[in-house]
Amino acid sequence: MQLAALRHRTESEDCFVVDHSHVRVRVHTAKGDIKEIIAHYTDNYLSPETDQSIKLTKSGQGQVSDHWAATLTAPYHRLKYTFEVVDQNGERVILGDRGISEFSQKNLLADSSYFKVPYLHDIDMVKTPSWVSDTVWYQIFPERFANGDKSNDPAGVKAWNPEDHPGREDYYGGDLQGVIDHLDYLKSLGVSGIYFCPVFKASSNHKYDTIDYLEIDPNFGDKDLFSKLVSEAHKRGMKVMLDAVFNHLGYKSMQWQDVVENGEKSRFVDWFHINSFPVEPYRDPSKGEGDAPFETFAFEPHMPKLNTANKEVQDFLLNIATYWVKYFDIDAWRLDVANEVDHHFWRKFHDALVAIKPDFYIVGEIWHSARPWLNGDEFTGVMNYPYTLQIEDHFFQKKMSAQDLTEHLTDQLMLYRDNTNHAMMNMLDSHDTARILTVANGNQDLALQAVCFMFMQPGSPCIYYGTEMGMSGDNDPDCRKPMDWDKIDGPVWHRVHDLIEFRNSHSTLGHGDIVMSVTNSGLIKVERTGDEKITAYFNTTDKAHEFKENAVLSQNLVDGKLACDGFAIVFE
Amino acid sequence: MQLAALRHRTESEDCFVVDHSHVRVRVHTAKGDIKEIIAHYTDNYLSPETDQSIKLTKSGQGQVSDHWAATLTAPYHRLKYTFEVVDQNGERVILGDRGISEFSQKNLLADSSYFKVPYLHDIDMVKTPSWVSDTVWYQIFPERFANGDKSNDPAGVKAWNPEDHPGREDYYGGDLQGVIDHLDYLKSLGVSGIYFCPVFKASSNHKYDTIDYLEIDPNFGDKDLFSKLVSEAHKRGMKVMLDAVFNHLGYKSMQWQDVVENGEKSRFVDWFHINSFPVEPYRDPSKGEGDAPFETFAFEPHMPKLNTANKEVQDFLLNIATYWVKYFDIDAWRLDVANEVDHHFWRKFHDALVAIKPDFYIVGEIWHSARPWLNGDEFTGVMNYPYTLQIEDHFFQKKMSAQDLTEHLTDQLMLYRDNTNHAMMNMLDSHDTARILTVANGNQDLALQAVCFMFMQPGSPCIYYGTEMGMSGDNDPDCRKPMDWDKIDGPVWHRVHDLIEFRNSHSTLGHGDIVMSVTNSGLIKVERTGDEKITAYFNTTDKAHEFKENAVLSQNLVDGKLACDGFAIVFE
Repeated sequence: MQLAALRHRTESEDCFVVDHSHVRVRVHTAKGDIKEIIAHYTDNYLSPETDQSIKLTKSGQGQVSDHWAATLTAPYHRLKYTFEVVDQNGERVILGDRGISEFSQKNLLADSSYFKVPYLHDIDMVKTPSWVSDTVWYQIFPERFANGDKSNDPAGVKAWNPEDHPGREDYYGGDLQGVIDHLDYLKSLGVSGIYFCPVFKASSNHKYDTIDYLEIDPNFGDKDLFSKLVSEAHKRGMKVMLDAVFNHLGYKSMQWQDVVENGEKSRFVDWFHINSFPVEPYRDPSKGEGDAPFETFAFEPHMPKLNTANKEVQDFLLNIATYWVKYFDIDAWRLDVANEVDHHFWRKFHDALVAIKPDFYIVGEIWHSARPWLNGDEFTGVMNYPYTLQIEDHFFQKKMSAQDLTEHLTDQLMLYRDNTNHAMMNMLDSHDTARILTVANGNQDLALQAVCFMFMQPGSPCIYYGTEMGMSGDNDPDCRKPMDWDKIDGPVWHRVHDLIEFRNSHSTLGHGDIVMSVTNSGLIKVERTGDEKITAYFNTTDKAHEFKENAVLSQNLVDGKLACDGFAIVFE
Repeated sequence: MQLAALRHRTESEDCFVVDHSHVRVRVHTAKGDIKEIIAHYTDNYLSPETDQSIKLTKSGQGQVSDHWAATLTAPYHRLKYTFEVVDQNGERVILGDRGISEFSQKNLLADSSYFKVPYLHDIDMVKTPSWVSDTVWYQIFPERFANGDKSNDPAGVKAWNPEDHPGREDYYGGDLQGVIDHLDYLKSLGVSGIYFCPVFKASSNHKYDTIDYLEIDPNFGDKDLFSKLVSEAHKRGMKVMLDAVFNHLGYKSMQWQDVVENGEKSRFVDWFHINSFPVEPYRDPSKGEGDAPFETFAFEPHMPKLNTANKEVQDFLLNIATYWVKYFDIDAWRLDVANEVDHHFWRKFHDALVAIKPDFYIVGEIWHSARPWLNGDEFTGVMNYPYTLQIEDHFFQKKMSAQDLTEHLTDQLMLYRDNTNHAMMNMLDSHDTARILTVANGNQDLALQAVCFMFMQPGSPCIYYGTEMGMSGDNDPDCRKPMDWDKIDGPVWHRVHDLIEFRNSHSTLGHGDIVMSVTNSGLIKVERTGDEKITAYFNTTDKAHEFKENAVLSQNLVDGKLACDGFAIVFE
């Protein structure tokens, strides 16, 4: 038995309270090594003789590990448990709180063999809002979605031409009225949440260089209009998510300019991480210019890093964060560069928001494994890049085999608790990347097959505006073309629409368990189990495949329109 | 290579910020499998071509794993790092954020290979007060330490006879004046911290059945006297730790009695976890009597569990916790049944106390692995039972071999960050257990050898009152005999005194690294490395051993008195 590969961690993604009387446990073992795992468990204050036992289910196969899980019952809200592990040769050990011991009745009953959940506290449970798992997001880059009010267009606005390749400084006049005008459109597409790139007062077309977090950019509209947008979206059952940058301020911000001008005497000195005065000229240590006079985002002297350990900065940011919830009723924040801000601040942020809206959704932008932020007291989920980038590595880049993909995705799912996996934000492209159609070398079937695969996964899927129109576009700024409204009702539109409707009408896709594998014919098999069982097959081989199994094929699902090459669905 | 055994976890005991520019990393591998591990690392915003590399040190051998560690430098306060792992056969892989990949320059430079520490925040660093690691604690059971004031003796007090076997309800008249009278004694013994069993108003001799947390028990003295005790202790460089029970209230508490009398109408209904009314008679579900009307400690109807998620209960308890710090200047709390109270409460508790006294010490009573409480925002350390019980399993019970002991202790050290290990509270006996001399079957040398072993370990050692007098005693109440003051200056006293002085004069024992192993002759070897290098050998075999190595033997250390059979120390 590969003893050093036996892994279980208390009070973590391997052991989490599901409700006041149930705990979900996971164990990880070397791939192929273990035949069965049995959990023995009882109340902490009952003798081991009262142990119940349950076999763990092999819930997935990762790159080098097998993953096992079970749900244990704790009627008195306390739990002790230990694992009996049996390998393929029948060797049997106990995996417990003080390591591994020989299997014997005596060892099984020893207190040191038991992991403990001392009390199942509701307040410590990781909670995720149920609506998130049922939501299909639609990301809007406001300057390019629709121009609903020509009176607020910036000077020199260009004609709305979806074929244009926009320059970095170009304006097309998109605004909030344009979004309001198309809420019924979004509703008809099946969308249930809108994720807005920044809408606050700023000087660029992308508005990431915020001037005032408490103002709507005048080219987009004003607060009355934004308030109307939120309430009209809510009327249609759509949630609204805004985008915030809390890691750093802009160079032109009043606070940083005060430091630049007044140096040590500025009242904002403690708002930043300043190493020495004067703060200008900036010395870039990465270029060997010496020690940086202050901390920045990356080595970018125009983005001074905020000191979020400072109470004044915390108040400043929490006021912004709560303002748009209290007075405009937004439902979610997406947080830019979320990983570089301290955990203490995010805990305060989380507490302030759920105090106003208990089912508020907080999504961090984190491109790597995000376990430290996802323990219930900071973010609900993150933008799931480590997950979706691997989908692209297989479907588009062909850098990963089908087997590698299913194994790596399975491992990724083991990083987080189940309900956290169901509240991740999944996307294949955005304003920061090339559009999937372009990444797929113009192969629309392939692009949509990957979108289908993403829709079959746990987590909230997000469609970048224009994907439903079959829009293409290379990296920023080319991925920010004006929306191609002429393609409504086109073949791509219908396939995306039908996919969204399919997701909307099967809550198992939002809440069910998942098991992934590769069939003998090389198809990727995704099984989702919840209120119903839905199995999806994806043919990403270079051979055509006739889906002939006892299946209701996707072709039959919604009048043939959901079908894309190499994709079939079976209901059991 | 045993790939599934390669373990590393970001932002945890495997990856922690040491200071604003340094991160300590650990990797765990299957025992004997791996030859070397090299960390490649640089700033998050620099290209991988700027990578530095460092070999990890094999820092210890556990039951089934080898443990490796290194300290990485992050001059710009951000870090990305990945591990090159080479096994005994020269096979080489990369262990990174998305699993394991083949070793190649391309994979080594891939962003997905890097683990991240996005920013090294001071506020998120786990801090432990330096004084704790330098402290030798002395646990006092106040009713049995010394009677300094006969005027406050309870009725029916028994004569002070250290040979007595106390009954459960006996009183001997010990009090706070008795402690004050002996502060100089404790100072001369070398003690630098006093851990008091409860001193609050209660009805029993052990005072665990608190009546009023804001009063000193009248049999012990009053607040003026307690204030004097703390200030006199501080004058002598001694810290003071009190004991608190925040998991449940006593049956006779005003709040619970109000619920018993007024049922649903009681204003304290939300102070507890009540399932149904009336709350009496109690039904014990473990005896098949049905559903319990309310939650209790264990199945003990006289200890109703507090609802620490209730703001009023939080205020009540935090007021108590801060009162004794603000007005009496205590230095530490020891928390009874700490594991069953919710984490949210303990975070508030921690924040409230360090706001008053930044170097406050918080010790939880937790008998199992305590990782979830030791991430810097709840407890500083815990009573280190899983550690010390294994010392007893080897030295006294002979249930564990020397090899098993060193391996299991090494694994235990891997559960926590280094500075947390240095702030654990280590004890071999207490008011809740039989005395070590009794556990050692009266073998004083053996008992003291185990104490010496504990003193060589990281963590704050704690001596139970009377150990220095060679007192014996079986389980509670026999371990609570009146202090045997006649044995001062006896041979045991001198050995304990010299051991404490030895620890006090070598800060390496409090702060240094540790490596444990077993020599060819079967001796346990404990190497501590800090300002100096100290190696201790323990002969726990059944054969006598002549310590002849190029060593300054313990016999020579302090006039021969530190020596106990089978224990030697070498300075290098």
